[in-house]
Amino acid sequence: MTKSKNILFIMCDQLRWDYLSCYGHPHLHTPNIDRLAEQGVRFERAYVQAPLCGPSRMCFYTGRYMFTHGSYWNPDPLKIGEMTLGDYLRPHGMRTVLVGKTHTAADGEGMARLGIDPNSDVGVLVSQCGFEPFERDDGLHPDPIVNPNLRYNQYLRSLGYENENPWDRNANGALDEAGNFVSGWYMRNAVRAANIAEEHSETPYMTGRAIECINTLGNQPWCIHLSYIKPHWPYIVPAPYHDMYGPADILPPNRSEVERREPHPVYDAFMKLRFSQTFSRDEVRQAVIPAYMGLVKQIDDQIGRLMTFLEKSGRLEDTMIVFTSDHGDYLGDHWLGEKDLFHEESARIPLLIYDPSPEADSTRGTVDKRFVESIDLAPTFLEVAGGQPQAQRLEGRSLLPLLRGEKVSNWRDYVISESDYTGRDAMRSLGLSPADCRAFMIRTADWKYILHETFRPQLYDMKNDPQEFHDLGADPAYQEIRNELHEQIFTWLRRRKMRTTMSAADIDNKLGPEVEDKEGILIGYW
Amino acid sequence: MTKSKNILFIMCDQLRWDYLSCYGHPHLHTPNIDRLAEQGVRFERAYVQAPLCGPSRMCFYTGRYMFTHGSYWNPDPLKIGEMTLGDYLRPHGMRTVLVGKTHTAADGEGMARLGIDPNSDVGVLVSQCGFEPFERDDGLHPDPIVNPNLRYNQYLRSLGYENENPWDRNANGALDEAGNFVSGWYMRNAVRAANIAEEHSETPYMTGRAIECINTLGNQPWCIHLSYIKPHWPYIVPAPYHDMYGPADILPPNRSEVERREPHPVYDAFMKLRFSQTFSRDEVRQAVIPAYMGLVKQIDDQIGRLMTFLEKSGRLEDTMIVFTSDHGDYLGDHWLGEKDLFHEESARIPLLIYDPSPEADSTRGTVDKRFVESIDLAPTFLEVAGGQPQAQRLEGRSLLPLLRGEKVSNWRDYVISESDYTGRDAMRSLGLSPADCRAFMIRTADWKYILHETFRPQLYDMKNDPQEFHDLGADPAYQEIRNELHEQIFTWLRRRKMRTTMSAADIDNKLGPEVEDKEGILIGYW
Repeated sequence: MTKSKNILFIMCDQLRWDYLSCYGHPHLHTPNIDRLAEQGVRFERAYVQAPLCGPSRMCFYTGRYMFTHGSYWNPDPLKIGEMTLGDYLRPHGMRTVLVGKTHTAADGEGMARLGIDPNSDVGVLVSQCGFEPFERDDGLHPDPIVNPNLRYNQYLRSLGYENENPWDRNANGALDEAGNFVSGWYMRNAVRAANIAEEHSETPYMTGRAIECINTLGNQPWCIHLSYIKPHWPYIVPAPYHDMYGPADILPPNRSEVERREPHPVYDAFMKLRFSQTFSRDEVRQAVIPAYMGLVKQIDDQIGRLMTFLEKSGRLEDTMIVFTSDHGDYLGDHWLGEKDLFHEESARIPLLIYDPSPEADSTRGTVDKRFVESIDLAPTFLEVAGGQPQAQRLEGRSLLPLLRGEKVSNWRDYVISESDYTGRDAMRSLGLSPADCRAFMIRTADWKYILHETFRPQLYDMKNDPQEFHDLGADPAYQEIRNELHEQIFTWLRRRKMRTTMSAADIDNKLGPEVEDKEGILIGYW
Repeated sequence: MTKSKNILFIMCDQLRWDYLSCYGHPHLHTPNIDRLAEQGVRFERAYVQAPLCGPSRMCFYTGRYMFTHGSYWNPDPLKIGEMTLGDYLRPHGMRTVLVGKTHTAADGEGMARLGIDPNSDVGVLVSQCGFEPFERDDGLHPDPIVNPNLRYNQYLRSLGYENENPWDRNANGALDEAGNFVSGWYMRNAVRAANIAEEHSETPYMTGRAIECINTLGNQPWCIHLSYIKPHWPYIVPAPYHDMYGPADILPPNRSEVERREPHPVYDAFMKLRFSQTFSRDEVRQAVIPAYMGLVKQIDDQIGRLMTFLEKSGRLEDTMIVFTSDHGDYLGDHWLGEKDLFHEESARIPLLIYDPSPEADSTRGTVDKRFVESIDLAPTFLEVAGGQPQAQRLEGRSLLPLLRGEKVSNWRDYVISESDYTGRDAMRSLGLSPADCRAFMIRTADWKYILHETFRPQLYDMKNDPQEFHDLGADPAYQEIRNELHEQIFTWLRRRKMRTTMSAADIDNKLGPEVEDKEGILIGYW
């Protein structure tokens, strides 16, 4: 018996786990998001399986590790045949709908090979990562690549924002003191208010679209993926959020000079990238982070709006609500910008789940400190939809037993995250081929070990050095623990679920010599 | 420039590498097959990537390791989206046609999900592992599973073999002294002549079908996969082949009492299986192996017939001919029957390639001792067809440079083979779950190391113990080499080609911050 009939799967882009008050931010108050934590479960140790938009999302959507699904970088199409949320949920009568960003590239070559018209019903689903696209908007629309039919731009123009690309000129741009346009891409402009009325900016717009979508779907069970582009670049937010926070409100930088002494070559290459250099300057952090906080605050207010709508429409009683992010943002910590690497600022995410079912009453307002992975959501949703576990494909584990306070044995004692930095200039500066731009991270209660191709590993003592300043990857004193973690990654890797076409039941049905005997295939009789 | 316009890809089922005279068998003369060695290249150290019919064939057809393609056991459908020979060759104008066995199960679930009608053109190709089925015949048709429309049975009935299943009653059965039917499945009957005229038995039939297929295809370039079921079970052959060889002609058993002292648990479990117990008895070997040799001799004669046809029709001048097997057969060696494990008798195969091109003249009649894998054929064929290497998917390497005596650098110095014994009763006797029935073998010039899930590894010193009697897997003196080979498998595993949708050229085109700059995605500018 479940009361979770629908699933509202909310994702922010590049939202750090620690920039929410329920996760302890001292100055950024997010009461609406906190309300989800109060009425549901807050997962304290949730990690993405790839700290980069596209690959991370493919982990969420497929329930499989990055190694397995094969989409290692934002432009990599998810190969045809990989099942996504919609493939799992639709057979159980659950509409699976996208409102916002997925960062999916369509496998056009695969569709052509299998004779699938991209405009057919199946073709659209394959192209949209298995979602029905109520509104697909990946949130990055600078002039050179803007789609002339972008719905958000049409919306803004209909409101009187009279230019070719109001996404750029209004939602992500500002006016300087002389009234000239300045772009939100330039971080120095993060202190300015975006040149748009707050209620027309992206976060309220997409929230409104989610509400329309819920209204449209009516009584049929649904899983709606409301996927915000913010607080991702460009870091710019409209009034009143643009000056709600100042340099005094930001967290102090988590970085140390010791990190710059003989750094690991890959870390070193990332510290040298433009965004890291820029973000390492205090003036940049002081300009950008308050805008970042404003963007988060705006999301919180929109979550409040959404919760009010759900409450009034009765949906709060039959809708599971998930709030999370696709990865974090260094924001200058560890002398880095962006994400890609495995420090807690990058690979750790907020994860809140509200389950309306009475069975979940015992866990409301609790904090779960078990290790949770992004790939756990797909099997969770499948269980909510009433499907059988598809353990031959899904590599995550359903969180439903955790949400409902059931006794769970053998829960994982580590998480894995992977990176492929083919897309970063680090590849060239390090002189690597794409196959060498790979790293695997294992995080246990006590350790974080990072296996690099070509280069030595990194190791951090998470108990005694939670800030991750001291890389023990070359210290002979730690050879044994490094070996152990190295071997643990190997064991993990051997168990990736490549054998997807045979379920445990299929295997049982075909198993054993008595099956062959019955078929008349009499091997070994004299 | 190439003269290889067509490819004749001949596969036997369960043919050991050492039961051909060109590979050194002292009593089994195979002059027609030897002629391929004389006019082409004989690969001395060729290995399958999985010593079991289905998984091995999927490696041949996909050009990918078993781990990667995910079909681990005969009944496992090859998942939709995995590309096979036909997908690679057809775009270059090469018809890719099956005559015989593939052991492929169709991914019906995948087709249904993608809306592909199994009877459509694409659906038939997906169901037949990418081949146009001129004739699909997996070669095992006992009564309980025989297809009533089996073409071979229709053919036999049209010749007057008047019963419901002449495959069973005639081609694979015999008459005893009293004139009663006895089945070829029972190994004691291997000494009898199959109850069929030789020219109507399976090997000549399928050879004739290949000739018809070549005639039908005419001038268009083709790759024909002529795939014989023999010398696979049932071990029975018509006259005059049934008594051509006797116990004096068989190779002595390669086994030692030392192997039965404290054997590795997985090896032990396999020694206890029915077919191993049976094959360990001398009377069984003496009855079966002469029939096995007769089946090979018959294949050799049919290769002679085929070569004469090719010569007369001019096809010998423009057709690459490949002769190989999907794995070996223990035939009682190491106290084992069948295959599955990694001794040379099981994992090593014959591989002969005749390339008619003048560029290959310098290698005719030579023996190539480099390590070659079954997955090398797909990229070889793609190069013959004139295609670009698809290194993002294909895990093998084209053999064309080897065939043409070109300077090749960095050729591999090891081979990998994998086993999943879910399908064997060893799983139950060892009390394992399917995910634990896995083993990975690495063979270098000097060593063979086998990594088992759950159990200790095996190690053989191939230089000093080429017969593989002494398992050094638990000997402390060999810890260092075991660690080294273990790590080599890990490195190999990390490089499996999961990222199939991005070629090196695709990556280059999208690479670097200047691409983002051009698109207007200005990350990190102040």
